[in-house]
Amino acid sequence: MASNGVDEQIKLVEGPAGYVLEDVPHLSDYIHDLPTYPNPLQSNPAYSVVRQYFVDEDDTVQEKIVVHKDSPRGTHFRRAGPRQKVYFKPADVRACIVTCGGLCPGLNTVIREIVCGLHFMYGVTEVIGVDCGFRGFYSKNTVALTPKTVSDIHKRGGTILGTSRGGHDTSKIVDNIQDREINQVYIIGGDGTQKGASAIYKEIRRRGLKVAVAGIPKTIDNDIPVIDKSFGFDSAVEEAQRAINAAHVEATSVENGIGLVKLMGRYSGFIAMYATLASRDVDCCLIPESPFYLEGKGGLYEFIAKRLRENGHMVIVVAEGAGQDLVAESVEQQDASGNKLLKDVGLWMSLKIKEHFAKQSVLDITLKYIDPTYMIRAIPANASDNVYSTLLAQSAVHGAMAGYTGFVSGLVNGRHTYIPFNRITEKQNKVVITDRMWARMLSSTNQPSFMNPPKGTTVVSN
Amino acid sequence: MASNGVDEQIKLVEGPAGYVLEDVPHLSDYIHDLPTYPNPLQSNPAYSVVRQYFVDEDDTVQEKIVVHKDSPRGTHFRRAGPRQKVYFKPADVRACIVTCGGLCPGLNTVIREIVCGLHFMYGVTEVIGVDCGFRGFYSKNTVALTPKTVSDIHKRGGTILGTSRGGHDTSKIVDNIQDREINQVYIIGGDGTQKGASAIYKEIRRRGLKVAVAGIPKTIDNDIPVIDKSFGFDSAVEEAQRAINAAHVEATSVENGIGLVKLMGRYSGFIAMYATLASRDVDCCLIPESPFYLEGKGGLYEFIAKRLRENGHMVIVVAEGAGQDLVAESVEQQDASGNKLLKDVGLWMSLKIKEHFAKQSVLDITLKYIDPTYMIRAIPANASDNVYSTLLAQSAVHGAMAGYTGFVSGLVNGRHTYIPFNRITEKQNKVVITDRMWARMLSSTNQPSFMNPPKGTTVVSN
Amino acid sequence: MASNGVDEQIKLVEGPAGYVLEDVPHLSDYIHDLPTYPNPLQSNPAYSVVRQYFVDEDDTVQEKIVVHKDSPRGTHFRRAGPRQKVYFKPADVRACIVTCGGLCPGLNTVIREIVCGLHFMYGVTEVIGVDCGFRGFYSKNTVALTPKTVSDIHKRGGTILGTSRGGHDTSKIVDNIQDREINQVYIIGGDGTQKGASAIYKEIRRRGLKVAVAGIPKTIDNDIPVIDKSFGFDSAVEEAQRAINAAHVEATSVENGIGLVKLMGRYSGFIAMYATLASRDVDCCLIPESPFYLEGKGGLYEFIAKRLRENGHMVIVVAEGAGQDLVAESVEQQDASGNKLLKDVGLWMSLKIKEHFAKQSVLDITLKYIDPTYMIRAIPANASDNVYSTLLAQSAVHGAMAGYTGFVSGLVNGRHTYIPFNRITEKQNKVVITDRMWARMLSSTNQPSFMNPPKGTTVVSN
Amino acid sequence: MASNGVDEQIKLVEGPAGYVLEDVPHLSDYIHDLPTYPNPLQSNPAYSVVRQYFVDEDDTVQEKIVVHKDSPRGTHFRRAGPRQKVYFKPADVRACIVTCGGLCPGLNTVIREIVCGLHFMYGVTEVIGVDCGFRGFYSKNTVALTPKTVSDIHKRGGTILGTSRGGHDTSKIVDNIQDREINQVYIIGGDGTQKGASAIYKEIRRRGLKVAVAGIPKTIDNDIPVIDKSFGFDSAVEEAQRAINAAHVEATSVENGIGLVKLMGRYSGFIAMYATLASRDVDCCLIPESPFYLEGKGGLYEFIAKRLRENGHMVIVVAEGAGQDLVAESVEQQDASGNKLLKDVGLWMSLKIKEHFAKQSVLDITLKYIDPTYMIRAIPANASDNVYSTLLAQSAVHGAMAGYTGFVSGLVNGRHTYIPFNRITEKQNKVVITDRMWARMLSSTNQPSFMNPPKGTTVVSN
Repeated sequence: MASNGVDEQIKLVEGPAGYVLEDVPHLSDYIHDLPTYPNPLQSNPAYSVVRQYFVDEDDTVQEKIVVHKDSPRGTHFRRAGPRQKVYFKPADVRACIVTCGGLCPGLNTVIREIVCGLHFMYGVTEVIGVDCGFRGFYSKNTVALTPKTVSDIHKRGGTILGTSRGGHDTSKIVDNIQDREINQVYIIGGDGTQKGASAIYKEIRRRGLKVAVAGIPKTIDNDIPVIDKSFGFDSAVEEAQRAINAAHVEATSVENGIGLVKLMGRYSGFIAMYATLASRDVDCCLIPESPFYLEGKGGLYEFIAKRLRENGHMVIVVAEGAGQDLVAESVEQQDASGNKLLKDVGLWMSLKIKEHFAKQSVLDITLKYIDPTYMIRAIPANASDNVYSTLLAQSAVHGAMAGYTGFVSGLVNGRHTYIPFNRITEKQNKVVITDRMWARMLSSTNQPSFMNPPKGTTVVSN
Repeated sequence: MASNGVDEQIKLVEGPAGYVLEDVPHLSDYIHDLPTYPNPLQSNPAYSVVRQYFVDEDDTVQEKIVVHKDSPRGTHFRRAGPRQKVYFKPADVRACIVTCGGLCPGLNTVIREIVCGLHFMYGVTEVIGVDCGFRGFYSKNTVALTPKTVSDIHKRGGTILGTSRGGHDTSKIVDNIQDREINQVYIIGGDGTQKGASAIYKEIRRRGLKVAVAGIPKTIDNDIPVIDKSFGFDSAVEEAQRAINAAHVEATSVENGIGLVKLMGRYSGFIAMYATLASRDVDCCLIPESPFYLEGKGGLYEFIAKRLRENGHMVIVVAEGAGQDLVAESVEQQDASGNKLLKDVGLWMSLKIKEHFAKQSVLDITLKYIDPTYMIRAIPANASDNVYSTLLAQSAVHGAMAGYTGFVSGLVNGRHTYIPFNRITEKQNKVVITDRMWARMLSSTNQPSFMNPPKGTTVVSN
Repeated sequence: MASNGVDEQIKLVEGPAGYVLEDVPHLSDYIHDLPTYPNPLQSNPAYSVVRQYFVDEDDTVQEKIVVHKDSPRGTHFRRAGPRQKVYFKPADVRACIVTCGGLCPGLNTVIREIVCGLHFMYGVTEVIGVDCGFRGFYSKNTVALTPKTVSDIHKRGGTILGTSRGGHDTSKIVDNIQDREINQVYIIGGDGTQKGASAIYKEIRRRGLKVAVAGIPKTIDNDIPVIDKSFGFDSAVEEAQRAINAAHVEATSVENGIGLVKLMGRYSGFIAMYATLASRDVDCCLIPESPFYLEGKGGLYEFIAKRLRENGHMVIVVAEGAGQDLVAESVEQQDASGNKLLKDVGLWMSLKIKEHFAKQSVLDITLKYIDPTYMIRAIPANASDNVYSTLLAQSAVHGAMAGYTGFVSGLVNGRHTYIPFNRITEKQNKVVITDRMWARMLSSTNQPSFMNPPKGTTVVSN
Repeated sequence: MASNGVDEQIKLVEGPAGYVLEDVPHLSDYIHDLPTYPNPLQSNPAYSVVRQYFVDEDDTVQEKIVVHKDSPRGTHFRRAGPRQKVYFKPADVRACIVTCGGLCPGLNTVIREIVCGLHFMYGVTEVIGVDCGFRGFYSKNTVALTPKTVSDIHKRGGTILGTSRGGHDTSKIVDNIQDREINQVYIIGGDGTQKGASAIYKEIRRRGLKVAVAGIPKTIDNDIPVIDKSFGFDSAVEEAQRAINAAHVEATSVENGIGLVKLMGRYSGFIAMYATLASRDVDCCLIPESPFYLEGKGGLYEFIAKRLRENGHMVIVVAEGAGQDLVAESVEQQDASGNKLLKDVGLWMSLKIKEHFAKQSVLDITLKYIDPTYMIRAIPANASDNVYSTLLAQSAVHGAMAGYTGFVSGLVNGRHTYIPFNRITEKQNKVVITDRMWARMLSSTNQPSFMNPPKGTTVVSN
């Protein structure tokens, strides 16, 4: 059993049979003699029936659950939820919320539920919205958030706070947090954002401030590790069906019709893979994790020609990050301003496929390209993501009130947990193409494996 | 009163107070002593209650209905609907259906209802589907269409028959019609297609064949004159709302966000205009009929900057045919393969606006471009278009059975009519920018009129 | 040519060839020497391009447009739209809006566009919302309506003003209008409401007040005469498809499955008829205008048994006002509190059909009853209804500003007009079952005509 | 370590640290010397990349994953997935599929994927669909299922096989299975159906037949224990939002408006609870697990009056099984035929609430009741349920091919497993009202706990 220092942020607790708890930091780790208060939920009539409402301090959630009889027990995370004691007096809490990075269904639900959770569960009334991402910390404008102002926002897409990329200056942000006397910081964003959140937490700890920093991981691509899935992912896969359906209709309504749909996924192809599995109308799914090539035996052109001859039509789904090496090689040889557009793998593939079959003049294809990206990102969360976002937000609130800090709120094997920042920022979640989900996908499309490129062929290998 | 020869196809009937009927051809115009039969609907129990079911031969529909006390009565069209007598014995009918041009919601409904109308109303059992547009007349494959095979197709987008552009060889097509002993030809397509239909009708008439040719005008852009609106237009405007909503969410979720949506409309901006009016979230709507320019006073860049300063965000809708002169001028100066993409006004405007504001470096804009074209075209018809397509198809069937030929089935002032081909192919329906609907649009967006370009500025003038 | 007095409200203008204009009242009919002002739209840059923007005073819209060569020209209505001169100085206008009766998609759009039309087109800033129908005139609460407060309401169903039925006391309402110094009254509601509006107009005229009264007819059932269709009708028919689809799925997933859907339509069956035509999955459509009976030869039970034997399933659509005599006769014989529920024709038919087939014990049916009424009424307007509602509201505003009063804004043959109150309240629009639309419906369902009931059978005859 | 006999069906395997595997039966448990074959997936090119494709025989999935450092390891289930060896030669397999009970989104996806899984993964070509539930085993009609016939069925609601309740005669069913030489039986249905499946398995085992029996648990109510959630549940919660939204619009558009929505859930309130959490517009959620009462202090009437005074409107969601004692008591006192309808808690509550407030005459309420049950059940599966249903079906196929029998395919903590029948039929999954999810619900609605009924009050206690 060991507790580690400031720098590493890593708190490991070991137990029998290979049990390891990767714990999250707590304000009391670096501030001594903090007073505690009874959780106000104890006197809330709504909870009077709920005997097991407060989480047992010893509750942990097991990460690896496909086990053998004699497997070691492995990594665990601290279970999320309300604690008997809290480390903030509600009247003293001054919380802020910031959203960073691209849009994702559910952002507004998370904002709403942090505000409502703090207000209705803990009686906290001061919550501030930071404008347009990290850079909003330096601006004078903030917006006061109350249950009334956020009441209907979960029915809208986007983020009412605004968002931006980058703009992270740890020291200025923490100065600003101190100036505004904020003591709970809720940061919603992807892995870059959570790295920023981690830096903010470390600086706060360095300065010895009683400020809890809680992250809610956001990535429409589902590329954050450890957690089951990210909020908004379900809604995105659902909405992607529209584009695939349209591509299928276009493809089947002409001779040798090809419908090409680009979906989100810069580094991981989860949306493309799940949308393909859900739709069943897709003939080929290309993702960043699985290399492919165009020309020659076993290549994409050959497969297209084969499918068109068999079925007369074909639907291809490509994740935005697929084939980036091919694109780069092809585009860097040219130089005009229109070519910027070709960095988009969808536009690039459209051109390439059209050129190939025009040159070949055997199959007279008709290709329709659909890029539904911004139509997907901008939808409101579906019911399932609304519930999920709600629980993530409530968990974050319970955690911060209980004095935990330097953590993200995340679902592990269906249970809500607190996970240390480093575990979700140290690598990206990717489709494991040697695992069964990808095999299921392959068996549904019967696409080639692209494993044996002819000599000299460029193959993507991310 | 005058009936004209083969070439002109024009049958004008005049009456008192300036009344003119622009009549459609009839098989009996060029084949004498055709036998007639009682309409089988007379013995259909479903119609026994319907006293006024058969259309009076003298019924005509007035084209101009905004009149003054002393206006002349003007043009009229023959009212569509079942006649007491038909010119085909049901058992002798051999009909074919062909769909041409781009996809449009409602195509499958029209196909379904021609088949079902012929079958259930007239007892016609031989209906053939021609494969993939006019060129399908030369191919051996046709598909037998029965109420059973078309039963559920109205719930799907696209066309089950397949479609294509061009491929029109009048003489070969008419040979084929003769070879297959087809005597009713239903042609669904846009103005190019209806010109083809007109040529087919003329050739059939020249050969003296007892073959009725009926067109059902199809254009998602609503650019066919005379008729109130084309089928599928309503569904398209409805579906376009999704893209505009998404653009609005994207634009409002960042600082200086611009959402740019390209909608269909190569020569006419109806979809863009109605979608803008329906949405109310659009700040600027650009259509082919209304010239605009980018640079300088009164130009688009200036307006964008103004709106961003006022509201912090902006939504622009551009019809695909808007600004084609600007695009042509800009793109022809360059030569790389990626530049092909720039012929797309949406991609071109995205680049231009980004480049302008990057250069200017005053406003740090974020532009998101959405092209929902194929997602709109591919949806199934909504309820209103389903009913409308049904009635168009039934009207065409009634007309052909009654021996009319060389006509399209069209809605004029809310009444179903038969219109001679020439009236709908001689010009295109366009947004009249000196008329009130465009003024309503302008008053809803408050966009500039683009009427006073600085000297030397290129302005689009289609 | 004749202009009539206060009481009749009827202004007829006659012309050559049987031309009649049924004109609407004008403030100058009873107040002399009213000053006029140039229409502020003249100096609005958005309208500078629009040469034909202002409506010619002589423009009228013809009601009957299916004509013969020698038909008389018949009734016309005054064309709606902006006039060169207005009778109100914008700064003096104090308008109010009230919504009455049941919910209907588009109510919020109409409210929004009256507010925005007055504001942006005419510079009127004082618009008051009356709370919850006519009775709101007596209450102290009103809500100030500005373009900002109504900005997004068209995306929501219902009415932000609230609504109620009845509560009409002409004299108190006009007192209140005087007390509040309101001079434009916009009344949105069905025929009962418009009768109230007419009474308010007459009382205002009797008192000689310079107050324009404009109605916007609202009826989800489409039962208002003269006008082409009422706003919200399209959206309702669209949404009804969901219920019919569900009924179809339920019916086809069991042996002898019956799906029964009740749709709106107390006195007229338009929604049921159009929803049936749009869906094509309906086997029987029952509406108030067409009597039917259950037992015996040619009755509903017999038809159900026939269809189940043929297809194994069946979908029935019944308008809420269908079969009311049958229901009344059946229910008045009983007396328990649960029987109140049986006044609902849907619940009543469910029970009756189940009882009949249980007793008969030949066919083991499974009936699923769906009543989507409130789910349909509460949706936001679709795109087509949004545009339509917008234009109705703008027409009403132009009319009131131009000094017209005692009119409703309505679409006649696709053109916007002003119609005198009496023409739309004197009778209800009904499905004419001896006309062609009903025949089309019958031919699509092949249901019995219910024309020859066995002796002693009760048949509904509304 | 112990393996149990025929009767108990219970196979327990114990391991260190409290590890228990609740294993499923295998054909080799009662038939000796069964030949095995290499899994055909081994030579499928799609799987050549997938190293870890075959499930390790020792893989098990842990049931309890919220643990303490020193918790015993507890119950595990066998992990689902393809095995290296199969117990059927593909050419010998003759499979049948049957669907029983009420409709649920995803039924057609499960059917589709069993057929496609058997066909494409294992090369099995003989799959039979049993007509309309268990009773279909006695009828002569079956339908041959091929990838082609099931190709698009996942886009439709309901079940293409038809369904029914009851009709279970174990012995006749097994006779029929023998007669038709079926050796794999896939049974999709709720807990009653799985009890039937269990009986079929036992009889098959008694007769010593080489027939694998696999269940796929189906319950839209999510009331099956052990598994994470049932397929279709997500889609149902999503679709329920429409009804709640409509109720909210209706309630907010009148004074003292009450929207009452009945949702599915005869014995468990999961749909009501999740729909409430997802919507956030609900003021009160009533479920079978939580007793409530109407009259007096702390009762529903009091709460309604309170909310109406505070907000002017209110939305109530009631699960169909809530308050059954109250309903029974109230209805059994009466006797007319209309009262049958009152067994429906929604109709009953509508009447009760209306009567109460009419009598009271203080608050003039308007109540709108919505029952979306059949509109929810009949929708096609959403994307998430499509993927989930696909994997459940594939797991079942892998299990049966590998010789397992007497199992259901189920998701446990996000992992696919095989669970013995007894574990999912021995009790129902219910909302634990002393647990945190219900507390979250209560905290979102702030409804009363109904814990302290006045003396003499009837309180439901299921």
